[in-house]
Amino acid sequence: MNTPKRHYARPLDLKHGRIDMNHGAGGRLSMQLIEELFVRAFDNEFLRQGNDGALLPMIAGRRLVMATDAHVISPLFFPGGDIGCLAVNGTLNDVAMLAATPLYLSVSFILEEGLLLSDLKRIVDSMARAAIDAGVPIVTGDTKVVEQGKGDGVFICTTGVGVLCDGPSVGGECARTGDAVLLSGTIGDHGIAVLSLRESLEFETTIESDTAALHTLVAAMLAAVPTGAIHVLRDPTRGGLATTLNEIARQSGVGMILQESAIPILPQVEAACELLGLDPLYIANEGKLVAIVARDSAAALLEAMKAHPLGKGATCIGYVTEDSNRFVQMNTSVGGQRVVDWLSGEPMPRFC
Amino acid sequence: MNTPKRHYARPLDLKHGRIDMNHGAGGRLSMQLIEELFVRAFDNEFLRQGNDGALLPMIAGRRLVMATDAHVISPLFFPGGDIGCLAVNGTLNDVAMLAATPLYLSVSFILEEGLLLSDLKRIVDSMARAAIDAGVPIVTGDTKVVEQGKGDGVFICTTGVGVLCDGPSVGGECARTGDAVLLSGTIGDHGIAVLSLRESLEFETTIESDTAALHTLVAAMLAAVPTGAIHVLRDPTRGGLATTLNEIARQSGVGMILQESAIPILPQVEAACELLGLDPLYIANEGKLVAIVARDSAAALLEAMKAHPLGKGATCIGYVTEDSNRFVQMNTSVGGQRVVDWLSGEPMPRFC
Repeated sequence: MNTPKRHYARPLDLKHGRIDMNHGAGGRLSMQLIEELFVRAFDNEFLRQGNDGALLPMIAGRRLVMATDAHVISPLFFPGGDIGCLAVNGTLNDVAMLAATPLYLSVSFILEEGLLLSDLKRIVDSMARAAIDAGVPIVTGDTKVVEQGKGDGVFICTTGVGVLCDGPSVGGECARTGDAVLLSGTIGDHGIAVLSLRESLEFETTIESDTAALHTLVAAMLAAVPTGAIHVLRDPTRGGLATTLNEIARQSGVGMILQESAIPILPQVEAACELLGLDPLYIANEGKLVAIVARDSAAALLEAMKAHPLGKGATCIGYVTEDSNRFVQMNTSVGGQRVVDWLSGEPMPRFC
Repeated sequence: MNTPKRHYARPLDLKHGRIDMNHGAGGRLSMQLIEELFVRAFDNEFLRQGNDGALLPMIAGRRLVMATDAHVISPLFFPGGDIGCLAVNGTLNDVAMLAATPLYLSVSFILEEGLLLSDLKRIVDSMARAAIDAGVPIVTGDTKVVEQGKGDGVFICTTGVGVLCDGPSVGGECARTGDAVLLSGTIGDHGIAVLSLRESLEFETTIESDTAALHTLVAAMLAAVPTGAIHVLRDPTRGGLATTLNEIARQSGVGMILQESAIPILPQVEAACELLGLDPLYIANEGKLVAIVARDSAAALLEAMKAHPLGKGATCIGYVTEDSNRFVQMNTSVGGQRVVDWLSGEPMPRFC
């Protein structure tokens, strides 16, 4: 297990504590819950990989990959998508981030009594479209119904299975000093699309979620460079880019230095973040990836990414450094430098 | 697709209808929701298999199997188990019922704000124990938190992946006229254990849930008879034995005739059913299986089942008949005959 020991302000109070919204927000407390409860209880080599999916042993020459996600986004429908396509794309992306080819999806629905069937149909149709677009069938499922007031419309759990040819691993623990940090496009679109709707903010241009399945982008990237050139792939969802990079720095035992000016943000997302007092680095994305790659392959990868519809805005946003503190630092646009910490403070719940 | 067209009283009202508790109760309305909405939208050959898991194509000589279940049982803790071990066992059983060896599990938690961490720990420890007992690791997971009043403590979605050596299929569509219908033990234990707690019923003996992972029983059965002798395996969960047998009759285009006196029921379960006005044939089980098998292998299978701790009460409860109506009929203990219909009437929600 590469992950270093981590010290939290205090251990989880397993006797008298309660779940609060922070435990689901993707920041430090989420990590603490996972480590001190789930990983400790379920302990095995696969879970200890610490990625958003598990790389499993070979079965007759191919490695299996498995990833799962619960989707509880509120509201169910938002500009650019809905909980249905999000549930398909999100899990496909977790499989793709292990450099695997997603093959099959399963889905479990938890429906609240009183849910409009027309809403359910819209969600299911959106899932079906997303699955067809991705070329990955939903092969099995389950449905449960809970009483009114015991759910929130629809929750959707999706699980994806994929395969991988054997080769050097891609995972959060594989970043190396000197690697380039690539980002596939603008950040904050998904979170701000959802938040604008929740807060009834109106902008001149509607901000749309970037929800998308990234496995074909990953396939194009893998094809563009020698095997082993891509060290880490991760989609910066809950907790945003900042949290994702901190997770990787921690898993790999490295630091990073970013260039603020290189991180693409849509003007309307930037404006909304200012209005809401939010940092786009912490806002959820659902169709973007971070790739940490051998520096001499960075140019070829950027070219391959830019040639793909989902990577048109790809840029190099920084480099991996040697740092025993595992700090993610940023050269700011105004010439300073600051540490980009994990998400903390107010939780941002239910963006996925 | 072997499943015959089915006529419901009226089609789902996808424009103005709403989800009600019946849609989750495992009876006709559940089936209708699955067929008219999910299967229609996600249509593919795997989903059309109509079993509780999907049999997938060969990958390098082995067939993959995938099954998923959402668990929303209320209360979270009950005599003989809790939502945690239930979530592990339930999904392992869905994989096992395809005659596959379960290899890996994933888990997604949907936690309600305010949940006691001590309760969560108890649940997680129970999952860990169940996974270790079964020899199947939980390899990946996800956690979401929803606001108080938008969930109900804990919902758990588990997905299992298994493998199968190629050979004759085992599935709900494979029952043949003349086959024997075997049952691994008493029915109704799980549902009555939960219901007794909900209704605060007290009996002289506590009725315990039968929750158990059945894959080693299945392995013992497969080893006891020639390949191809076992045609159908199914665990009679939601909707109970009656609904499970009706599903199989429908998938295979056959009828069945059961002997009421052959169906084992614990005296305290029988007493509780009488008190509550319930028919044990419709009560959920979580550690029992139905096997529909070639008649000349039935004796060897019963012997193998009885030699396994989870099959000690195994009996032959009836036979498969030719019947274009696909009726499941029963010779009653008082000498009559009646049709054992699908679950209808009052829904029995949240038993798994």
